[in-house]
Amino acid sequence: MPNPTAAMLVIGDEILSGRTRDSNMHHLAKALTERGIILREARFVADDHGAIVTAIRALKAGHDHLFTSGGIGPTHDDITADAVADACGVGISHRPDAMALLQAHYDRQGLPFNEARQRMARIPDTAILIDNPISVAPGFSVGNVHVMAGVPAIFEAMLAGLLPRLTGGAPLLSRSLRVLRGEGDIAESFAALAAEYPDLSMGSYPFHSQGRMGTNLVVRGTDPARLDQAFTRLEQLFA
Amino acid sequence: MPNPTAAMLVIGDEILSGRTRDSNMHHLAKALTERGIILREARFVADDHGAIVTAIRALKAGHDHLFTSGGIGPTHDDITADAVADACGVGISHRPDAMALLQAHYDRQGLPFNEARQRMARIPDTAILIDNPISVAPGFSVGNVHVMAGVPAIFEAMLAGLLPRLTGGAPLLSRSLRVLRGEGDIAESFAALAAEYPDLSMGSYPFHSQGRMGTNLVVRGTDPARLDQAFTRLEQLFA
Repeated sequence: MPNPTAAMLVIGDEILSGRTRDSNMHHLAKALTERGIILREARFVADDHGAIVTAIRALKAGHDHLFTSGGIGPTHDDITADAVADACGVGISHRPDAMALLQAHYDRQGLPFNEARQRMARIPDTAILIDNPISVAPGFSVGNVHVMAGVPAIFEAMLAGLLPRLTGGAPLLSRSLRVLRGEGDIAESFAALAAEYPDLSMGSYPFHSQGRMGTNLVVRGTDPARLDQAFTRLEQLFA
Repeated sequence: MPNPTAAMLVIGDEILSGRTRDSNMHHLAKALTERGIILREARFVADDHGAIVTAIRALKAGHDHLFTSGGIGPTHDDITADAVADACGVGISHRPDAMALLQAHYDRQGLPFNEARQRMARIPDTAILIDNPISVAPGFSVGNVHVMAGVPAIFEAMLAGLLPRLTGGAPLLSRSLRVLRGEGDIAESFAALAAEYPDLSMGSYPFHSQGRMGTNLVVRGTDPARLDQAFTRLEQLFA
């Protein structure tokens, strides 16, 4: 069975302006790889309704899953939930179970459950909530679109709750060999080896460290026996 | 005059698999903001010809500039130059001036200028070369598509050479106010202030640090006087 595929959409002016450096994509990439879900594409867009809707429509149609990050807080620039509802063609309203969760949370803290905070209970119709063990306001899944917070600790906690619900594939394994030769020296025989193993993916990544130049050769795939076989050949060629 | 807009395309399996964490997008975002060019969108795709071509066509049509990172080395997984030629509808061949640069570089190092290394001189027709002061193999611009290496030190050096060639806009300025209140407390008056300044962009970013919860309020725009005015109002409201 082929591995499921995924895309990510990161939403927020603060990342495209360079104010904040995103870490959610890298975290998601590693988590999906472990679970055998292939992240094929990621997009970053600004807090712009039209741009978010267009990206959601394209990405949810092209992949088994779409994961989003950002834009689900209480302020005027948090517009992700409405964009998801639009893109998925469903309504949106204050959802009673989310309202109850948030009401209890703010009651415990002695803070007013005002209109801004109630915005975080606006959830698209048909959604399944994603638990937020850190600050309560939930994420949600509408079909194959999984909507999570942008704050890294909350994104990571939501993802940890969500992933066990999703069907994974055979884990994507990788092995890498570090050689102290330039890419140009190894390119020809490395390409020939890659052509012999079309079921595996092989990549080369140059590095410079402490005045030495070299290349990391990486082999990836889901079949451990094939991976071992190809890696042994790689070692014979370059070690 | 409105600020020029830009998109970025990051190419490489190693980033989507989580093996490597990209840093070029954050670097580009900061550099463009200083130069008054607005980064509106970024995409990450794998080493897949069709995916790269589709993304280049969409992004070069939608923005004044497209910057790409990755896939211009000597190995079989370096397929960016061919994809750019395809997407831009131009031919590609070993270009004499790039061949001469590389030949001299490898002669100096006493390394063979073999077929793999000659691949790095394959440049789309009509391109302008982008200088690579680190490892010589050039980047290039075809129309509004600027193609650079993925290794961060080389990407940054190429960008430093390229940016002075591009027409910038009024620098995008920003000021931020750190308040020790939750987003839900400030959302209503912050939204009202944002509505009074439609020419500025205002965003709020929650943080948790050392047990304290708070929000960074950020105002962005190109007119220093309007920015000062709005920031003074922000301080009166929340400081």
